[in-house]
Amino acid sequence: MKPVRIGLLGLGTVGGGTVNVLARNREEIARRAGRAIEVVQAAVRDPGKARICGTGGIALCGDPVEVVDNPDIEIVVEVIGGTGIARELVLRAIGNRKHVVTANKALIALHGNEVFAAAHEKGVTVAFESAVAGGIPIIKAIREGLAGNRIDRIAGIVNGTSNYILSEMREHRRGFDDVLGEAQRLGYAEEDPSFDVEGVDAAHKLTILAAIAFGIPLQFSRVHTEGIAGLHLEDIAHAEQLGYRIRHLGIAWRRPGGVELRVHPTLVPRRHLLASVDGVMNAVLVHADAVGSTLYYGAGAGAEPTASAVVADLVDVVRALTTDPENRVPHLAFQPDAMSELGVLDRDEAGSAWYLRMTAADRPGVLAEIATVLGEAGISIEAVVQPEPPRGAHFAKLVMLTHTVSEGRMRDALGRVERLDVVDGEVVALRVEHLEDCPA
Amino acid sequence: MKPVRIGLLGLGTVGGGTVNVLARNREEIARRAGRAIEVVQAAVRDPGKARICGTGGIALCGDPVEVVDNPDIEIVVEVIGGTGIARELVLRAIGNRKHVVTANKALIALHGNEVFAAAHEKGVTVAFESAVAGGIPIIKAIREGLAGNRIDRIAGIVNGTSNYILSEMREHRRGFDDVLGEAQRLGYAEEDPSFDVEGVDAAHKLTILAAIAFGIPLQFSRVHTEGIAGLHLEDIAHAEQLGYRIRHLGIAWRRPGGVELRVHPTLVPRRHLLASVDGVMNAVLVHADAVGSTLYYGAGAGAEPTASAVVADLVDVVRALTTDPENRVPHLAFQPDAMSELGVLDRDEAGSAWYLRMTAADRPGVLAEIATVLGEAGISIEAVVQPEPPRGAHFAKLVMLTHTVSEGRMRDALGRVERLDVVDGEVVALRVEHLEDCPA
Repeated sequence: MKPVRIGLLGLGTVGGGTVNVLARNREEIARRAGRAIEVVQAAVRDPGKARICGTGGIALCGDPVEVVDNPDIEIVVEVIGGTGIARELVLRAIGNRKHVVTANKALIALHGNEVFAAAHEKGVTVAFESAVAGGIPIIKAIREGLAGNRIDRIAGIVNGTSNYILSEMREHRRGFDDVLGEAQRLGYAEEDPSFDVEGVDAAHKLTILAAIAFGIPLQFSRVHTEGIAGLHLEDIAHAEQLGYRIRHLGIAWRRPGGVELRVHPTLVPRRHLLASVDGVMNAVLVHADAVGSTLYYGAGAGAEPTASAVVADLVDVVRALTTDPENRVPHLAFQPDAMSELGVLDRDEAGSAWYLRMTAADRPGVLAEIATVLGEAGISIEAVVQPEPPRGAHFAKLVMLTHTVSEGRMRDALGRVERLDVVDGEVVALRVEHLEDCPA
Repeated sequence: MKPVRIGLLGLGTVGGGTVNVLARNREEIARRAGRAIEVVQAAVRDPGKARICGTGGIALCGDPVEVVDNPDIEIVVEVIGGTGIARELVLRAIGNRKHVVTANKALIALHGNEVFAAAHEKGVTVAFESAVAGGIPIIKAIREGLAGNRIDRIAGIVNGTSNYILSEMREHRRGFDDVLGEAQRLGYAEEDPSFDVEGVDAAHKLTILAAIAFGIPLQFSRVHTEGIAGLHLEDIAHAEQLGYRIRHLGIAWRRPGGVELRVHPTLVPRRHLLASVDGVMNAVLVHADAVGSTLYYGAGAGAEPTASAVVADLVDVVRALTTDPENRVPHLAFQPDAMSELGVLDRDEAGSAWYLRMTAADRPGVLAEIATVLGEAGISIEAVVQPEPPRGAHFAKLVMLTHTVSEGRMRDALGRVERLDVVDGEVVALRVEHLEDCPA
């Protein structure tokens, strides 16, 4: 089947990330969507500018109207931002009966009611997963995943810049201005940081979350908004002493008389999951009557996390274009004729680090003997702890952590360790996973 | 429009929870789905048995074939469990061109390939969100929300019983058998707990997650499965000393030569979010190339959390039945003509607890004076901390936490506190949210 042709409005951070993700995962995305997705045109301000993505096969043009009027294009991706030209272009694309995917939270928060009404009239989709919390599929979770619930409350860390500044202030006891300056140098904060640190960006996102959670129109002007600018380091420290951590939260709460919408720095109990969300990460806590509390955590900004949500929206639209409604989403995510041949590894090939506990003779040279057996098997030891043995005991407990090794190799080595005269009984072996980010 | 009629196979915990959620949120669900959803028939083993739900309006029958053959029924919900009769009934319902929603992880993990092939042939949907991690919309997140990504790894706490036992063992230094016995008395563990504590239930769920993440067929027999039975308390303690916590994880990992599928007790770093998931809660960590790490947390079992996922599946199916494909999911979650009239509260009506920091004269009676002003405004103090003032200072810092109060009342009270002679300058006021579960 022919690829679905899309046009981009803007080719900056999010646009470039989208081109890269679509190119890198082209085959896998087509297996999920039922058709390949191809960027054929992109409107840019400066065609000569250096970009984070390749532009081969993409016709660059200076006039975005060319893209929204291009009859070859079925879906327009709006990543210009702002509420001026972006609004006009999105409405014009809808008028041309094109589906729209947008990452523009300000546009949806301020003009969403108008945009969706136009889309309904023309029978097209406007998808905006990337407008809230970057790569976290929070719009889909609330709108579809929790559709059986009466949603009571949303509390979210939805501005990564503010969360980064708060995390740095707490961890390194640095003042607000100091950390903000560094965040700007690192590219985590804009040159004009007011949208982030004064809470406007979070208020845009909260407006959208509240609408889909409670079934109310978008009402940005009703959000009470405070940012983190001016927060004192000493209050972060006092909060800590009291068992709390300060987070910048957007809160939407269904109360008996109406909905509370507010964005502000907030003390949350240090044991709460939201208190553990550090740096530029985002997290949204949703409380609903049937499911109780659920939490969604991930990267809230950046080229590829945001592109992840843009492409998910594209796949949603393409699935609706390509399949019968009953099979819009393939049962097992990928189209049935596009399963992978990837095999399942044998148990012995699986790799992990290990925790080992054994009972060994309490005399010099024993640890060396055991370490030699492990070393010969290519297993390196990360840490050894030897709890104090009871007075007069001839055997001592030995606890160790190893680096990563295959299961087969570990099993062989354990057999040899257990056969050592200095080791008594079986070795208790548990796997250790550090769960760090996978290599990209 | 006429309600969509559904039939239930089974009316136990999950079936009863589904009836209750559909009844309680009937209006809100219809606003999202576009049509009301009505349970018209349910097959039960013992019609006289006491149930957690009302059965008014539901025709109870003893023969489940009546339900799958009932021409009035459009969607069959299978909550019998097991892989015998459940498989036959699901295939028969599909043969009758009915959509199926199932919470049956064993059925999908063992017979999903056959079931989905039949569904494709007949053009019907088989939805199974509730089969993995209860109310967490993890199937939807992976299958749709991360559709732009190459998924590298999934690591999940997907068996609540095992996680409850591990949490209790660690927190209260109790042995495995002791905690298991209590879990059985509390109803967290089955009378025959082997599916849970030997890892079979988690392996069923991992099988499903791996299939949708990697686009591979369901391959339960290839999962290497270990449970928590026989885990020693002392290893939990040693792990803690080393900076780790033991969790029972299902891990699916895309390696160069194939996929690793394994379920076993695992040490994870204590600072990792998965280490903070306690009790019967579930959480799934997904790492993918574009979005990086995302985490999904919530209740993995229980009548209503599981019903939440069953109803989400029902709404998905009904949305496909009722609307044009482009508007299958309403932009703002609820159908455009079904917005709520719920208003947004004025700022003064919002309620929260408060952290207050002020500078006050360092002499007897000052705290009483301030507390009196707050008390007169109906604000009660939860805690007061008075950091040691510098030697010879006449003013001291006063930090306090209040109970919940409306913003308007707090603002008025703060004005009066600031006007007190004994208080110097402005009071720093920050909101405190305990983020406990909302009252149901």
